[in-house]
Amino acid sequence: MKQAVLKEFIQKVWNEGDINAISKYIADKYTIVHDPADPWEGMELDVAGFQRRVATSREPVPDQTFDIQEMYEKEDSVCITWLWSATHLGEIAGMPPTGEKITMSGATVYYFKNNKITGHWQVADRLGVFQQLQSHLNKEG
Amino acid sequence: MKQAVLKEFIQKVWNEGDINAISKYIADKYTIVHDPADPWEGMELDVAGFQRRVATSREPVPDQTFDIQEMYEKEDSVCITWLWSATHLGEIAGMPPTGEKITMSGATVYYFKNNKITGHWQVADRLGVFQQLQSHLNKEG
Repeated sequence: MKQAVLKEFIQKVWNEGDINAISKYIADKYTIVHDPADPWEGMELDVAGFQRRVATSREPVPDQTFDIQEMYEKEDSVCITWLWSATHLGEIAGMPPTGEKITMSGATVYYFKNNKITGHWQVADRLGVFQQLQSHLNKEG
Repeated sequence: MKQAVLKEFIQKVWNEGDINAISKYIADKYTIVHDPADPWEGMELDVAGFQRRVATSREPVPDQTFDIQEMYEKEDSVCITWLWSATHLGEIAGMPPTGEKITMSGATVYYFKNNKITGHWQVADRLGVFQQLQSHLNKEG
């Protein structure tokens, strides 16, 4: 059940950007426990806050796709590893859009209560993204 | 069983640097399936190669510790999330030793066959490490 909820959440919310679907998947309070890639790290978000987070995050990469690699389940959490890809169409960390395809890998633990997601712990290879952006910008320059 | 093997492997080999213990934990061939932080990414190592990898990796950070956060198990693999810390005593990616404590987070899937580890898929927040090193070097400069 948790794995099915999570798969649908990733697809609808993060891949398709359907922010109206968010309340179906997350609890009233969602905590970003650990996520060095995320400006909301450490915060507790309600549904409206989470909607803003998704909309803002997807702005520079509107066609982003998280492709789940492995999925693990424990009593109160699900852990996934993933590959991410997107076309870079807006500013990321001060770097102007390159129009190029970028990729990243990562892993996320999603915490559950009553089949709703209450937060996550995440790590991603952000350095790989910066190296790709710099390489694309150098080519242009 | 797999979780106990992995815990001991992380402690003895990566935390304590006991390279003579490696053959107890890994299969004759160990494949680094995905690991953007690792110079051996994509390679298949035998025990001697793995010993060189551990010795080389630990050189600049001889007191490194992987502190396992969560552990998940499936039929043929175990996934862990971890926090890493170390004192930076040797060159890392061209940056001179700072003597400072550095930290990193990551997640690793370890693949098993007959209770021996046959390889891994890993992601780590390398950018966080570079940001810490740069901040330490700027303080000194």
